Amino acid sequence: MQMLRETILELGYVLPGNILNANAFLNHQLNTQLLVQIGRAFAGHFNRLGVTKILTIETSGIAVAVTTGIELRVPVVFARTTPTPTIGSDHYSASAYSYTKQVRHEVIVARKFIQPQDRVLIVDDFLARGEAVAALASIISQASAILVGIGIIIEKAFQDGGEKIRAAGHEVFSLAKIKSLSPPNRIEFVD
Amino acid sequence: MQMLRETILELGYVLPGNILNANAFLNHQLNTQLLVQIGRAFAGHFNRLGVTKILTIETSGIAVAVTTGIELRVPVVFARTTPTPTIGSDHYSASAYSYTKQVRHEVIVARKFIQPQDRVLIVDDFLARGEAVAALASIISQASAILVGIGIIIEKAFQDGGEKIRAAGHEVFSLAKIKSLSPPNRIEFVD
Repeated sequence: MQMLRETILELGYVLPGNILNANAFLNHQLNTQLLVQIGRAFAGHFNRLGVTKILTIETSGIAVAVTTGIELRVPVVFARTTPTPTIGSDHYSASAYSYTKQVRHEVIVARKFIQPQDRVLIVDDFLARGEAVAALASIISQASAILVGIGIIIEKAFQDGGEKIRAAGHEVFSLAKIKSLSPPNRIEFVD
Repeated sequence: MQMLRETILELGYVLPGNILNANAFLNHQLNTQLLVQIGRAFAGHFNRLGVTKILTIETSGIAVAVTTGIELRVPVVFARTTPTPTIGSDHYSASAYSYTKQVRHEVIVARKFIQPQDRVLIVDDFLARGEAVAALASIISQASAILVGIGIIIEKAFQDGGEKIRAAGHEVFSLAKIKSLSPPNRIEFVD
């Protein structure tokens, strides 16, 4: 996706620890027109699969889940990673380690929002080690729903998350695949 | 806004402590088509004011900020309330107490994303005591930018946030104003 690659090269920069700082367009400031294009790309790709619900994880997955959900005309559910008094005790949970924030999260979704008949599309901003996607996939499995695919904006192809998820039989559709990152601003894409 | 009121009455329910649980459409599961309508309503109302940026606060403000930003064709900035290693030290901050979660947050926005020439529209899901809006308004003021108005999905009109912000000279545009809440599901609107 050309617009995405250009934005990454123009506004992204690299921090030590293989972190791509996308705060100028994806993780703190949001380029809304880019997000519309990304939502359209995900919707176009997964349209054929009868998606009934989009699942993502707070915080940075919410924006792209919304633009994808608008296009596919389905609701979004965002998993919580911080306790909130309104979610109640009747929920699915799974555990995910964030390498960026160096903390382990409990990932929580209220049971009533994922039903066995749901065909769920996971979307997220980044895929690196695959911890967040694995936790969301576990929740879909706990709900006896069907995971139809995973839409990722930026995949760090030099880390093993994508490989692990594809090896588990899931389709991962990534709009930008990064081959290598070197501080402060060397960003190399796959092909 | 009729569609919003109907959704609140159908899917909202009331928890002790004047909490309106909107998890079925706004705070955990997101009704994307409703969010599009809300974004259009905010954009229609504030269109005349030359908005250059939308400011909200993670987590639940992000979705509506995105749909409003799409309509107004401007970027969104969402303030962080949890520390994140990518945001750096060059930021504005203000403090806000969350009555729902009963914790005090530090509200953080990187300086480069709010400039003195910006005309900023604040949007958020709920307005109750006005703590989050006051923190965001403080950040806009620290940045020497202009706060052009505040768009709120659900205002708890029986609490003093709206009154305080209007008394400070700001325009608050609320799509649903609630007069009273009684558990488990008595929800009364203003007028």
